[in-house]
Amino acid sequence: MDHEQRVTLLNKMTLREKVGQLVQLATPFFKGASDQGEITGPMENMNLSYEDIEDTGSVLGASGAKETIHIQKQHMKDNRLGIPLLFMSDIIHGYKTIFPVPLGISCSWDQNLAEESARIAAKEASVSGVHVTFAPMVDLSREPRWGRVMESTGEDSLLNSDFARSFVRGFQGDLSNNSYNVASCVKHFAAYGAPEAGRDYNTVDMSEWMLREYYLPAYKAALDEGCEMVMTAFNILNGIPATGNKKLMRDLLRGEWNFDGVLISDWGAVKELIPHGVAEDAKQAAQKALTAGVDIEMMTSCYVNYVEELIHEGKLNEETLNEAVSRILALKDKLGLFDNPYRFANEKEEEEIVLAPEHRNAARKLATKSIVLLKNEQTLPLKKGENLSLIGPFSTSTDILGPWSWKGASEDTVTFENGLKAALSSEELPVAKGCNIEDGSEEQFSEAITTAEHSDVVILALGEESDMSGEAGCRVDIRLPEVQLELLKEIKALGKKVVTVLFNGRPLDLREVVENSDAVLEAWYPGTEGGNALADILVANVNPSAKLTMSFPYSVGQVPVYYNHFNTGRPKEAPDAQERFASQYLDAPNEPLFPFGFGLSYSNYHYGEVSLSSTQLNATGQIKASIDVTNTGEMAGDEIVQLYIRDLAGEVVRPVKELKGYEKIHLEPKETKTVTFTITEEQLRYYHSDLEWSSDEGNFEVYIGSNSKVNVGKRFELIK
Amino acid sequence: MDHEQRVTLLNKMTLREKVGQLVQLATPFFKGASDQGEITGPMENMNLSYEDIEDTGSVLGASGAKETIHIQKQHMKDNRLGIPLLFMSDIIHGYKTIFPVPLGISCSWDQNLAEESARIAAKEASVSGVHVTFAPMVDLSREPRWGRVMESTGEDSLLNSDFARSFVRGFQGDLSNNSYNVASCVKHFAAYGAPEAGRDYNTVDMSEWMLREYYLPAYKAALDEGCEMVMTAFNILNGIPATGNKKLMRDLLRGEWNFDGVLISDWGAVKELIPHGVAEDAKQAAQKALTAGVDIEMMTSCYVNYVEELIHEGKLNEETLNEAVSRILALKDKLGLFDNPYRFANEKEEEEIVLAPEHRNAARKLATKSIVLLKNEQTLPLKKGENLSLIGPFSTSTDILGPWSWKGASEDTVTFENGLKAALSSEELPVAKGCNIEDGSEEQFSEAITTAEHSDVVILALGEESDMSGEAGCRVDIRLPEVQLELLKEIKALGKKVVTVLFNGRPLDLREVVENSDAVLEAWYPGTEGGNALADILVANVNPSAKLTMSFPYSVGQVPVYYNHFNTGRPKEAPDAQERFASQYLDAPNEPLFPFGFGLSYSNYHYGEVSLSSTQLNATGQIKASIDVTNTGEMAGDEIVQLYIRDLAGEVVRPVKELKGYEKIHLEPKETKTVTFTITEEQLRYYHSDLEWSSDEGNFEVYIGSNSKVNVGKRFELIK
Repeated sequence: MDHEQRVTLLNKMTLREKVGQLVQLATPFFKGASDQGEITGPMENMNLSYEDIEDTGSVLGASGAKETIHIQKQHMKDNRLGIPLLFMSDIIHGYKTIFPVPLGISCSWDQNLAEESARIAAKEASVSGVHVTFAPMVDLSREPRWGRVMESTGEDSLLNSDFARSFVRGFQGDLSNNSYNVASCVKHFAAYGAPEAGRDYNTVDMSEWMLREYYLPAYKAALDEGCEMVMTAFNILNGIPATGNKKLMRDLLRGEWNFDGVLISDWGAVKELIPHGVAEDAKQAAQKALTAGVDIEMMTSCYVNYVEELIHEGKLNEETLNEAVSRILALKDKLGLFDNPYRFANEKEEEEIVLAPEHRNAARKLATKSIVLLKNEQTLPLKKGENLSLIGPFSTSTDILGPWSWKGASEDTVTFENGLKAALSSEELPVAKGCNIEDGSEEQFSEAITTAEHSDVVILALGEESDMSGEAGCRVDIRLPEVQLELLKEIKALGKKVVTVLFNGRPLDLREVVENSDAVLEAWYPGTEGGNALADILVANVNPSAKLTMSFPYSVGQVPVYYNHFNTGRPKEAPDAQERFASQYLDAPNEPLFPFGFGLSYSNYHYGEVSLSSTQLNATGQIKASIDVTNTGEMAGDEIVQLYIRDLAGEVVRPVKELKGYEKIHLEPKETKTVTFTITEEQLRYYHSDLEWSSDEGNFEVYIGSNSKVNVGKRFELIK
Repeated sequence: MDHEQRVTLLNKMTLREKVGQLVQLATPFFKGASDQGEITGPMENMNLSYEDIEDTGSVLGASGAKETIHIQKQHMKDNRLGIPLLFMSDIIHGYKTIFPVPLGISCSWDQNLAEESARIAAKEASVSGVHVTFAPMVDLSREPRWGRVMESTGEDSLLNSDFARSFVRGFQGDLSNNSYNVASCVKHFAAYGAPEAGRDYNTVDMSEWMLREYYLPAYKAALDEGCEMVMTAFNILNGIPATGNKKLMRDLLRGEWNFDGVLISDWGAVKELIPHGVAEDAKQAAQKALTAGVDIEMMTSCYVNYVEELIHEGKLNEETLNEAVSRILALKDKLGLFDNPYRFANEKEEEEIVLAPEHRNAARKLATKSIVLLKNEQTLPLKKGENLSLIGPFSTSTDILGPWSWKGASEDTVTFENGLKAALSSEELPVAKGCNIEDGSEEQFSEAITTAEHSDVVILALGEESDMSGEAGCRVDIRLPEVQLELLKEIKALGKKVVTVLFNGRPLDLREVVENSDAVLEAWYPGTEGGNALADILVANVNPSAKLTMSFPYSVGQVPVYYNHFNTGRPKEAPDAQERFASQYLDAPNEPLFPFGFGLSYSNYHYGEVSLSSTQLNATGQIKASIDVTNTGEMAGDEIVQLYIRDLAGEVVRPVKELKGYEKIHLEPKETKTVTFTITEEQLRYYHSDLEWSSDEGNFEVYIGSNSKVNVGKRFELIK
């Protein structure tokens, strides 16, 4: 189908049919859905008729080749013009082969593995009938209270942008070729990751300067990579709900960035313009959202009930509607649905491809690269002959897939216990639960104590159950639940070596955990192969290499805490800082407990001195910044070498440090490698107070090291 | 001196002398200062000569008639043109007669008493030789972690604006008459009260919409009341330090608001442009600050060392300097200093006026109106015949004046013990310290337990020592120190009635305090007459009437929490809210522990139904909103009746509730009064997305009640 054919199709459509393309409903609304039960109620509430369903443009949450084919087949019969349905689903970190949660994936700092995880997810999803995934989420976040931080890739805009591109590449590949891909829908536009007080859906307010410098780049990166769709955010931004925000959508996204793909609301967000208080009723909500630029309304019926009326009344322009429909038809066409409405949906291939052994292997590999070693006092890796026990609510839990693992199944999940037993080639690992996630009995405790007493090393599997993070999973207390801390302390009091392995979806306040453990591993939610991956790390099949992509606060009272903060006028670290009148807390450090970029290895890496190829840089030139890194340990390993730059004076304030490059290198024991980064003028640009993106002449400091605390640098000057 | 004479004077001044007027130095730098010790070091560090001191325009922190007269006399000899010094000091909540901290004062909701407190402070300060006070601070704050919140009047812009006006009226009166006044310097321009993570001096970032709607009104109110000076803030605002922020100072303050008074930097803030990273050195700092609009540089020497040079190099315009000097000369003239450089400084009057009995009485009265009764389970007031004991680190402490009580003295302070003994007419009140502020011994604890065991009612005096709040006094943990909570719990375990009286400078997490107390009084730092005022409340000489002006959070993880928040698109309270997908925490309520406007009385007040004189309002009309309030208790008392309005739909989101009026009424037992508020279109205006301040047609809800939780209202429509 070419553009002209689509225009012809559009011209054949009634106003009603056009509006139908703008509607997205969940699977049970559609004839042929296996879970189509009693939907008369919801249909009545939404004021929808069966004819409306037949006109509807897209389906939310369907999957499985059999069902999607069935629904599509029925729809092609019912829809007057035979316009195929678009199937969209939340394929976030794997379809059925579940990879670590995105925050975990990001700790690999590995764009190839991230891309591969998305490619595998797309493959499994596409043969199961999915056309578009609501991913990647690229919302920058500095908010550990916010449960949805597990779906982000952390606090840095460079890393977020890199991951945005990798995920889009992985999901989409080349959409028009025959390679089991899905279209990608980047979300949530914009700044959803900065909810006030860390409470989901809450107020977001920031200067446009802050927005452009930190929060917007990753959305832009996804679009530059060809991402087909954009989803709006639930939050307001500076007084206007993102889903009714003309400035964000028409002016910035379509105008300034030239995005011509499909814009979809988040679930129910069009109608939420009413509780937000910018629309008096559903009709005004429809008017505001469509005018502001939302093409598809997800799961509410403001468009279907009112857009026709609004056009008749002259409150909406039919051309606005036509543009939205055209974009949706163009996407369907690009996906090949007019030629083959079933696309890659294929029951037989689904059986072969989903959970294929190579997918499991990839998930296992990525998980090992995502697990962060936070502490290790001569305890890990486990040594042969040590008596081990495994204790804690996550010992045998299959709740290690994490939020947004929808199609992931318990029965496919390798538990910690099973992974560890397999690695130890032993069935004799004593296991005790110790407590539940948020409570426990004396019996559980005493069983755990007895079990621990008979071992040299106790592996404690603690954490948050998965619905303690994820959407709307926000906490004011970001410590482990009290009962688990008690269990940890009682075990530690036995004098055993304690290895704490954490399963959770956010940076936690780990003060007590660190104090009472000899080694600490942050496993996040490691996915389908989690147990095996953890065992790989514990027995040193894999040397840990992951690094945090979000600061772990000292305590919740310190939030937000992040590495690329500004210096303030009274930095505590300044040589002339006053004891009292510095920017500080009386009862806590300014620094987080674990900084951005931090992660240990079973080896040690020695960093030499930074050397610069020149101390001057001009607008077209480059400086090579090099450093020698030596593995001084006994084990081969990967090290993520990080380049940070500080702009010493700007027209606006500049962060104390900004990540400008990173490279993962492999080093054999005693091996030294020289890592070289290229610095160009473009990397030194920033948003000025007039929102111009440019660099200024002046001095810059270059740091290269193993985490964001590195502070011995070399200086160069930019001369333009 | 008229304008022409000042111009003549300016024309006589050398460049050097002009720059001198822009310099403010602390007292020890000046000849004749009693504490003039070894200042050679500081002078060398600042690159200042004795000639520079002789040219200097103003003095920071001098007081006492004798000393200020002495310094001025000497200066008039040394200064070539005989330009008198301006004496400025931090007179924040009293000079020597200390009133409650401003956050406490604000809980009175009493503009007359607030004004009187400032008038008394001005009287004491002016006879002691002070010309200008660095007050009021009118920074809106939603940040209990921030120590300086004690100096604010809370989270609401209407209350902040009212208090701003009252304080300015109280300090300044009519400057040119003979009434013992001081000029007022409103601070900190702008938005100092919103430091990221509650850490003083830290990053402030917000949309201009947010800034104008909430943070700016109180500064504007102070200026509308004729406030003579403005002080800059330490923080950056949207990337630019306030002290180098042309947009804030030249464009907004001078341009839009037509402010033509003197602008002073906060302490050292000009030089802090260097650590902020917008100036490479002191010279550039001088250039940026003066260009942006700072007239007086406080306590650093960028101006004196570099302004001449910058003018010679053409990097600064001499006219800019002349304007600044003219403004300073005009202020000195307005204060009458050219006629009488000593102004009201008078040793004999100082002795009579400072700490005069009527000043103490006013301080005592205001303190009783500032103490908030947070809980009372049939415990207060104290009954005759009850055996009492007084326990806790604040029992006998004179540290009840609070931060910024500079001239307040221990020996003048009525302790809790002394006030209570006086009220009980008894010397037989058993007293035990129990513990120190942050630690305690077993002996202290057991003495306290023994003391408590012999009493029916234990009055526990707990809190933060004063330097745990105030400037740079920030805490990540806003509970009482652990040892005090332990003391409380052990006392409560004895089964005695426990009355907890709190001395502190910020909203605290009081969950454990409330749980373990039968009554809780928030005393703030009540000032010189604190002990008497508390006794007045405890024995019911005064019926408590104060109401919180900041929300008390449930826990620090909930911060910021404030009453006039936005609704979000998924309000938890909505009838159709989903159990999971609402804007909420998993482990805490959305609501604070004690809401804005909350405070109990020994009486009970019954509120009738709101009645509106009309359900329609037009642009020039008004609606009368009335309610009957009845004292259903047994004691006469004051009740602060609060009017809130909600705009149901706006062009931008609107708060769930906004304070639009309040009235304190006195009610005898069984008395009913009708309280009537007038609502006009002007009160319904707000900043739109284009920053236009106007109202929209539509529906509004009116609530009248005893605190911000009131939620049964009446509706009216605005028709324009």
